[in-house]
Amino acid sequence: MSILVTGGAGFVGANIIKYFLNLGKKVICIDNLSRGHKNNIFNFLAHSNFQFINCDISELEQLNLKLAPFTNKKIINEVWHLAANSDIPSGVKNVDIDFKDTFLTTYNIIKWMKSNDVFHLFFASSSAVYGDHGKNILSEKTGPLLPLSNYGAMKLASEAIITAASESFLKTAMIFRFPNVVGIPATHGVIFDFFNKLKKNPDILNVLGDGTQKKSYLHVDELIDAMLYIKNKLFNKGLVLYNIGPNNDNGVTVKTIAEEVVKSLVLNSNIVYGQGNKGWIGDVPEFNYSTEKLKKLGWEPKLNSHKTILKAISQIKIEIF
Amino acid sequence: MSILVTGGAGFVGANIIKYFLNLGKKVICIDNLSRGHKNNIFNFLAHSNFQFINCDISELEQLNLKLAPFTNKKIINEVWHLAANSDIPSGVKNVDIDFKDTFLTTYNIIKWMKSNDVFHLFFASSSAVYGDHGKNILSEKTGPLLPLSNYGAMKLASEAIITAASESFLKTAMIFRFPNVVGIPATHGVIFDFFNKLKKNPDILNVLGDGTQKKSYLHVDELIDAMLYIKNKLFNKGLVLYNIGPNNDNGVTVKTIAEEVVKSLVLNSNIVYGQGNKGWIGDVPEFNYSTEKLKKLGWEPKLNSHKTILKAISQIKIEIF
Repeated sequence: MSILVTGGAGFVGANIIKYFLNLGKKVICIDNLSRGHKNNIFNFLAHSNFQFINCDISELEQLNLKLAPFTNKKIINEVWHLAANSDIPSGVKNVDIDFKDTFLTTYNIIKWMKSNDVFHLFFASSSAVYGDHGKNILSEKTGPLLPLSNYGAMKLASEAIITAASESFLKTAMIFRFPNVVGIPATHGVIFDFFNKLKKNPDILNVLGDGTQKKSYLHVDELIDAMLYIKNKLFNKGLVLYNIGPNNDNGVTVKTIAEEVVKSLVLNSNIVYGQGNKGWIGDVPEFNYSTEKLKKLGWEPKLNSHKTILKAISQIKIEIF
Repeated sequence: MSILVTGGAGFVGANIIKYFLNLGKKVICIDNLSRGHKNNIFNFLAHSNFQFINCDISELEQLNLKLAPFTNKKIINEVWHLAANSDIPSGVKNVDIDFKDTFLTTYNIIKWMKSNDVFHLFFASSSAVYGDHGKNILSEKTGPLLPLSNYGAMKLASEAIITAASESFLKTAMIFRFPNVVGIPATHGVIFDFFNKLKKNPDILNVLGDGTQKKSYLHVDELIDAMLYIKNKLFNKGLVLYNIGPNNDNGVTVKTIAEEVVKSLVLNSNIVYGQGNKGWIGDVPEFNYSTEKLKKLGWEPKLNSHKTILKAISQIKIEIF
């Protein structure tokens, strides 16, 4: 049996494929390489347990056609659906991006699963579904869910269609609400952006917003560890929803990240802040993420947000410089 | 200035149009008459303040084209978006129905509003966004939101895209979570179904599920009263979300409704129940709806669920028999 990973050429996707291949599993990676990069999966291409399909999942016909060889043999048992827009500001400017890449991909993958008797779905949701709750702690029971960005909105829409599908036919429907995830191969995100800016001009680092935005960060290695932990505990048990993030953690400010990035390069760059506590429309200035539910299940991360950032900075520095 | 009512030929739509016309407002009704009926708006057609547009809002090009005459004159100031699939079981069988009629209509109307500088949106959401929380009371703060039906899922998806639009450009974004709403002109729903079944065969009334499903009911007159109350209090104040329903109310069982319908016709019909406490996949067997937030704003309904059902039964009886 094979595992289908959508968006497998993206940041989290490539990491999870590596994990599965190391376990000796067969993996089919599907990606349209719009934001994922073939570089990310380059090392897997020679692997006998790995297959890559270039496909835009937001086109149902294309999806059905390109998966037909596997579908006919009934060899796909579970789907890790990670394909999505990962560039939140771009989706704020153009709502069609998140509609197509974040929601329609989910919608179509569920239709494909239903048609082909595939019953186990794992979904990369996001803390962005919550919206801005000020200093309140965000647990899975928090409501109302008022996402500020189209990205968060289409992640929530995806959750919704998954929960309905779970009532209808799915045997496993795991919704993981990711925090900000960092690590390599970096394709986007604040650390990646800062390094790239400093590569162009080491003298100045322009920061979106006033730097007070404060977020929780988890390393991708820990994220995967958490998801697999939940999978092993609750496979075949219907709908499951978990926040994944660092424990008891107030997060790290953008200012701290900017300073740590500059420090890692041993530079004296002038850090110039913008205005307001939002990097863009739909940016959530601060959030406190509860992972108590996951802790009760028995999983805790090893690193807090600050240590996570330091680990990612050292990894991404090598990648970019 | 005119008010645009989408789904205006439907049950709630026709009622709100009547209300606005009585206030002397100008109303543009847009409906594709798939589930709405021209009968419902027949009395308005001669009214000088009323215009009807036959249009499928899930087709953005059609929407832009048909609204162009009004758009060019900038006469639409606010939108009451009521267009949606209203037949929940049909959407469970075919996910495309709720995707297209419930979600895409919302998605497109927001795109149209953004393009045409229309800033005030009122949206008919649903208690179906909550899913099954057992005996827990459902307040606006309840989470997680795990809708069981594609209908509920696409209402939640609509809420999500509206909240993101509110962050981006809307000045008023009112999300009203409807309970079960009854009254006339009835187009669907349990009372409507029971009367139609008894019209065909007065001897027997087949009920979906075992009759123990218990829900809260509000009369459409009270629903409209509540929405207008909220509008008057909170217009131009950004995102607003309210449960609307009867107060302190445990709801009424399907069994009670079946018995009251039979009683209203002075029949001795044999009421035959099905199995299980769900009428269909995605049916929520019981829910307790909190309207404390609305009560704090100063609005309370006059009728409880049981009295509401009796009022609706007497009205729908006249409509059907």
